[in-house]
Amino acid sequence: MNILIVHAHPEPRSLNGSLKDFSVQRLVSAGHVVQVSDLYDMGWKASLDVSDSLDGDPLARFDPSEASRCAYASGRQSLDIAGEQDKLRWADVLILQFPLWWFSMPAILKGWIDRVYAYGFAYGVGEHSDSHWGDRYGEGSMAGKRAMLIVTTGGWESHYGPRGINGPLDDLLFPIQHGVLHYPGFEVLPPFVVYRTGRVDEGRFANICASLGQRLDDLWLTPPIAFRRQNGGDYEIPALTLKDEVAPGERGFAAHVAAGRG
Amino acid sequence: MNILIVHAHPEPRSLNGSLKDFSVQRLVSAGHVVQVSDLYDMGWKASLDVSDSLDGDPLARFDPSEASRCAYASGRQSLDIAGEQDKLRWADVLILQFPLWWFSMPAILKGWIDRVYAYGFAYGVGEHSDSHWGDRYGEGSMAGKRAMLIVTTGGWESHYGPRGINGPLDDLLFPIQHGVLHYPGFEVLPPFVVYRTGRVDEGRFANICASLGQRLDDLWLTPPIAFRRQNGGDYEIPALTLKDEVAPGERGFAAHVAAGRG
Repeated sequence: MNILIVHAHPEPRSLNGSLKDFSVQRLVSAGHVVQVSDLYDMGWKASLDVSDSLDGDPLARFDPSEASRCAYASGRQSLDIAGEQDKLRWADVLILQFPLWWFSMPAILKGWIDRVYAYGFAYGVGEHSDSHWGDRYGEGSMAGKRAMLIVTTGGWESHYGPRGINGPLDDLLFPIQHGVLHYPGFEVLPPFVVYRTGRVDEGRFANICASLGQRLDDLWLTPPIAFRRQNGGDYEIPALTLKDEVAPGERGFAAHVAAGRG
Repeated sequence: MNILIVHAHPEPRSLNGSLKDFSVQRLVSAGHVVQVSDLYDMGWKASLDVSDSLDGDPLARFDPSEASRCAYASGRQSLDIAGEQDKLRWADVLILQFPLWWFSMPAILKGWIDRVYAYGFAYGVGEHSDSHWGDRYGEGSMAGKRAMLIVTTGGWESHYGPRGINGPLDDLLFPIQHGVLHYPGFEVLPPFVVYRTGRVDEGRFANICASLGQRLDDLWLTPPIAFRRQNGGDYEIPALTLKDEVAPGERGFAAHVAAGRG
């Protein structure tokens, strides 16, 4: 399989850097082909702006999604954006690897999403009408591919538990797993999470690698999170609310997972 | 009062730009002093890296939080970071204004948080032990100040409702309102949200400004979201889970709001 790792940590010798190196080695040993987008090493430009289109006119009024649509349709996107889209087309599996900074991804990775996820590529795909609100949430350009997060955090697991003060990690990751990955069609595997990164000695690092290695071996076996498909019959269109008979009375993120949380 | 607006849209003539201009005018007319950090206009550097400390050594192993702690403590932070911290100290109210991109803030604003929220300034404040896990979530450097989000999105309100496909907007904003604003001590007002931005004509724009104007007039009157305080007795320390008798049986984000969702 072809596997793309998008890696967002400024220090190659960090825990994240080591886990990335371990993942590459493990996947290559298993016969996969791996590409790494090491965003800091690439000097990835984080902020979406008018220069993202080769035809961008700094004096014209800049409409981000219209500019993205035109540049994508006409093949006039900035080369760094087009290159990352090619990697996504090539990949069977996408892994996003990052430290949790302020309960989300580092800016450089958010900027990879903001810029690479073009109109016509990641959104604005398929018919948009009052009876079909696009091919998204389970359909779209990434359908048939899988994705997984590898996330590290300094906090304790209990702080991210069902009643932990930071909020449950699954819910903190919902905007990414559901909104960024399920949206353009990826099947999303449960995340691989390392807590309490300040306390990783050699023994614990070996255990983390063993667990991560297993997850990487099982990339194609692990059941994905059962996010509902927008066009699978569970939602009213165009209101895009769950039908009354689907998860009746449930509200919030968990209602969008078919069999309850994994 | 002193009001800081951090604004993150690449086009001054956009809806976001117009709302920012309206807000400045309204607040100044009411006698407030306003500063705007217009991140695109400032060319704000989004990606946290070794150059954020004036003493940063590109050859040494870079530990983001340790580097932040040292630079903050020794007064050797990059000048752009120190300047934004000064504005935060000066402000009585912080407004973050942005379009919702991929269910979160644009990368440039995330990079403002990642870099300005230094160790010793926004986190790592107060005693950290097994009996007091820092001054945070209701205490900290921003205690006594208020904050509010102004957010625009292309989607419909129903898509962000209690059973909407994107997830409830309050929950999507929890990592920001709770994790970024409540964390260093801000009292967080309910967000001001504009849905369906593709359909804003002059009449609707006038209505939006009327509602926003009222919210700005009421900045000091509107009751904040009743996020629980970490050190207010509701949490076990150091597990930082809600005590059994607090919101018994509740899980997830809503359990951290004292009187249920506003």
